[in-house]
Amino acid sequence: MVSGTIKKIIIGESMIRVTVWNEYEHERTIPAIQKVYPEGIHGALKKILQKESDMAVTCTTLDEPEQGLSEELLQNTDVLIWWSHARQDDLTDETVERVVRHVHSGMGFIALHSAHYSRVFRRLMGTPCTLGWKHGDSEKLYCVAPSHPIAEGVPGCIELPEEELYAEPFSIPKPDEVVFIGWFAGGAVFRSGCTFTRGYGKIFYFQPGHEECRVYDIPGISRILINAVRWATPHTRLERPEDNVEW
Amino acid sequence: MVSGTIKKIIIGESMIRVTVWNEYEHERTIPAIQKVYPEGIHGALKKILQKESDMAVTCTTLDEPEQGLSEELLQNTDVLIWWSHARQDDLTDETVERVVRHVHSGMGFIALHSAHYSRVFRRLMGTPCTLGWKHGDSEKLYCVAPSHPIAEGVPGCIELPEEELYAEPFSIPKPDEVVFIGWFAGGAVFRSGCTFTRGYGKIFYFQPGHEECRVYDIPGISRILINAVRWATPHTRLERPEDNVEW
Amino acid sequence: MVSGTIKKIIIGESMIRVTVWNEYEHERTIPAIQKVYPEGIHGALKKILQKESDMAVTCTTLDEPEQGLSEELLQNTDVLIWWSHARQDDLTDETVERVVRHVHSGMGFIALHSAHYSRVFRRLMGTPCTLGWKHGDSEKLYCVAPSHPIAEGVPGCIELPEEELYAEPFSIPKPDEVVFIGWFAGGAVFRSGCTFTRGYGKIFYFQPGHEECRVYDIPGISRILINAVRWATPHTRLERPEDNVEW
Amino acid sequence: MVSGTIKKIIIGESMIRVTVWNEYEHERTIPAIQKVYPEGIHGALKKILQKESDMAVTCTTLDEPEQGLSEELLQNTDVLIWWSHARQDDLTDETVERVVRHVHSGMGFIALHSAHYSRVFRRLMGTPCTLGWKHGDSEKLYCVAPSHPIAEGVPGCIELPEEELYAEPFSIPKPDEVVFIGWFAGGAVFRSGCTFTRGYGKIFYFQPGHEECRVYDIPGISRILINAVRWATPHTRLERPEDNVEW
Repeated sequence: MVSGTIKKIIIGESMIRVTVWNEYEHERTIPAIQKVYPEGIHGALKKILQKESDMAVTCTTLDEPEQGLSEELLQNTDVLIWWSHARQDDLTDETVERVVRHVHSGMGFIALHSAHYSRVFRRLMGTPCTLGWKHGDSEKLYCVAPSHPIAEGVPGCIELPEEELYAEPFSIPKPDEVVFIGWFAGGAVFRSGCTFTRGYGKIFYFQPGHEECRVYDIPGISRILINAVRWATPHTRLERPEDNVEW
Repeated sequence: MVSGTIKKIIIGESMIRVTVWNEYEHERTIPAIQKVYPEGIHGALKKILQKESDMAVTCTTLDEPEQGLSEELLQNTDVLIWWSHARQDDLTDETVERVVRHVHSGMGFIALHSAHYSRVFRRLMGTPCTLGWKHGDSEKLYCVAPSHPIAEGVPGCIELPEEELYAEPFSIPKPDEVVFIGWFAGGAVFRSGCTFTRGYGKIFYFQPGHEECRVYDIPGISRILINAVRWATPHTRLERPEDNVEW
Repeated sequence: MVSGTIKKIIIGESMIRVTVWNEYEHERTIPAIQKVYPEGIHGALKKILQKESDMAVTCTTLDEPEQGLSEELLQNTDVLIWWSHARQDDLTDETVERVVRHVHSGMGFIALHSAHYSRVFRRLMGTPCTLGWKHGDSEKLYCVAPSHPIAEGVPGCIELPEEELYAEPFSIPKPDEVVFIGWFAGGAVFRSGCTFTRGYGKIFYFQPGHEECRVYDIPGISRILINAVRWATPHTRLERPEDNVEW
Repeated sequence: MVSGTIKKIIIGESMIRVTVWNEYEHERTIPAIQKVYPEGIHGALKKILQKESDMAVTCTTLDEPEQGLSEELLQNTDVLIWWSHARQDDLTDETVERVVRHVHSGMGFIALHSAHYSRVFRRLMGTPCTLGWKHGDSEKLYCVAPSHPIAEGVPGCIELPEEELYAEPFSIPKPDEVVFIGWFAGGAVFRSGCTFTRGYGKIFYFQPGHEECRVYDIPGISRILINAVRWATPHTRLERPEDNVEW
């Protein structure tokens, strides 16, 4: 009655279909960054995730047709990982609303680093999502919710010898859970790993991942990504977001 | 450093400037509802709030210039109360973004009843904000957070002999606080009084207030509105929402 | 450094070791209740859980040695399910502290129905955990967090033709997550399914389960119990709770 | 009906009755600390709070009759501030339960610094409340909830040139609100300002305040204390904590 005629798809025991979406700009256009990520940030993420026997990983980028985010691809995505920075504003309203519709229907969404300011993340948060930043710092990433599924097997402190400083105030709604807090040598703290729920979709924002230094391969960081994908995988996916329903 | 050059206005001990915005459609066009609210829902709310010695109340409606929500009015509003239903979609993008910008800067926002589906509330929540509904029911409104400022002087249970049934699932993000839960004779429950924070702005969603029956005058309900206005009043108002700031 | 010398045990892919602890008083001493639960409430719960291929279930009761909760048993328990009512006060301080120590170390804890007033649950909550109650009512149990792992495969509304009325105010701390809200024909609402974290231990309080009527066999209810056991299973178990640690 | 026959006392517009309880050990027995706080930490706190025209401040210490916490004093206390360290274990069960009973009935409770490990705070939290620590560090205290009442007029960052390092993991339940996060030069982060609710009582834990360095006089810190007292003041005080109530 309450959920009307919206079809619910129960997710089975099959593979988790992970889609890594990357803006893919810096790695193509800035030689120094090309050296850091010759395969693109999406390629680096894929390499990490596809080692997991329960994950099937697809990569897609902004300059592909439909901005790399077709209806068909999203329908076949359990968890969407998102990296963007220089071209946040190139995303069309249509693409934003298509992604948001799938999150509301249950698709998991993992926003990495500068994706705090992506149109999709801001649309889902309803806040400015602004913060302080400074290049060329180092970080200690502390776990403050050790029993959370995303913290499974993750050390209490992960050292990132190189990382961009991100600083509070981070203008987000109160997270469902703050799993990690970052300490920066430059004097800042940041809520670096935060979970949210929007509709049926689970969202994880994760701060590490500046394009100038390669942090995703650090074992603790890889482990967080892998855990976050499993955590964000929906057990139920709606055919479309919920409607108002007459009882 | 962190808040850059954004001017912060410290709110003094002066009057709370409350603006009641009402779509004002049903009360003008449906005779039965005109009888219930001859002065408009905004008029009824104003009558309640202006008795408070610390509140200065202004009313405004959708058909006024700039949809009743000019930049000047919003700059001079501490707390905006919002009632809308039939004409939610008439609100322009420009108006929505203007209101949202002021919430992010600190303006309090109280969404009443069917305003769960207003464009402003949905924009601030980032979720569908859908629910179940049925005309012609009755409600018992229970307080589940008795020490919350919005519950001050409010009975543990308020009886509403007539009220529209609203039903879970209510597709909102996890509230900062659920202060009231509604019980409906027709068999539904609903998170009827919920607080949120978005940027510097405090938000209260409050379910009672169907246009066909007059509930705001019930003493416990009036008291909740008065408390909510005081609670949502900002102690600090930004000149504009926070930006990303280079450290 | 931070976690000192406390040994962390990583939980493998083996069976979940579930211990069902029951006071086991009403079913032995009151004939009418013996008819409802001839095998004891613990026996009924065991029957449900042991059908799951990943669960190994042990039953234990208050009158057994060490009140049924020896150090050895608790060390070998991943999730402890608790039902108590008439003899809450018979639990010794020593037993309470032993159970609490294991929860802080990571053991999951599921408190059923009248166990809201058990010494262990109150000790973990830090609040009175009081509520309103009335025999002989019926309930509709609504899911308000459909993407939560405990809601997997659970209908939006479960009808309980017979259940004791439990009423707000329920004097608990703000739950991490309210997953279910109960509607009672007698006019009450109740936060019926709530999660908490205490130390490394995950806790689920679940209201249905009055001894006079058999509700655990209702498929939606069984499913919630099964899901709750999986959700509460720790990924990491400490040898003992965390200490203060000099850096 | 729901709250039975428990008398509710509505708090009027009179003065806030603040009681500062201090263990008062280090300042009496260690000369170096006597120099820092010649009037005792309680004396320093009193000096700050009694300047506020709405506060009436009483000091009391562990070695006074009834451990400085008589039933009569607690009945006449709106907000209890607590500093303890070396003699946490001297507190009797009776005293702990008397204080906890008043918190459950509505008395505000502010636990400072090493009071994270006081018996009262741990009893109210239900967790170990352990952390990492190291003498002789410095701190930057960041506000991460700028619209919270406790943050009113408080700078985004407060510098503490000398402060004991406190480090995560801090084994507390998820706070209602994390208002401040501390950054320590020694490489740690800490949830330094956290709110909780237990029964009718509001609780604020605040990390700064090591006995070897005088931080409470720093204007931002004083302001936080003053705000916290106002925030924790109950609007309703029960004669005794809530009971289970038959409907």
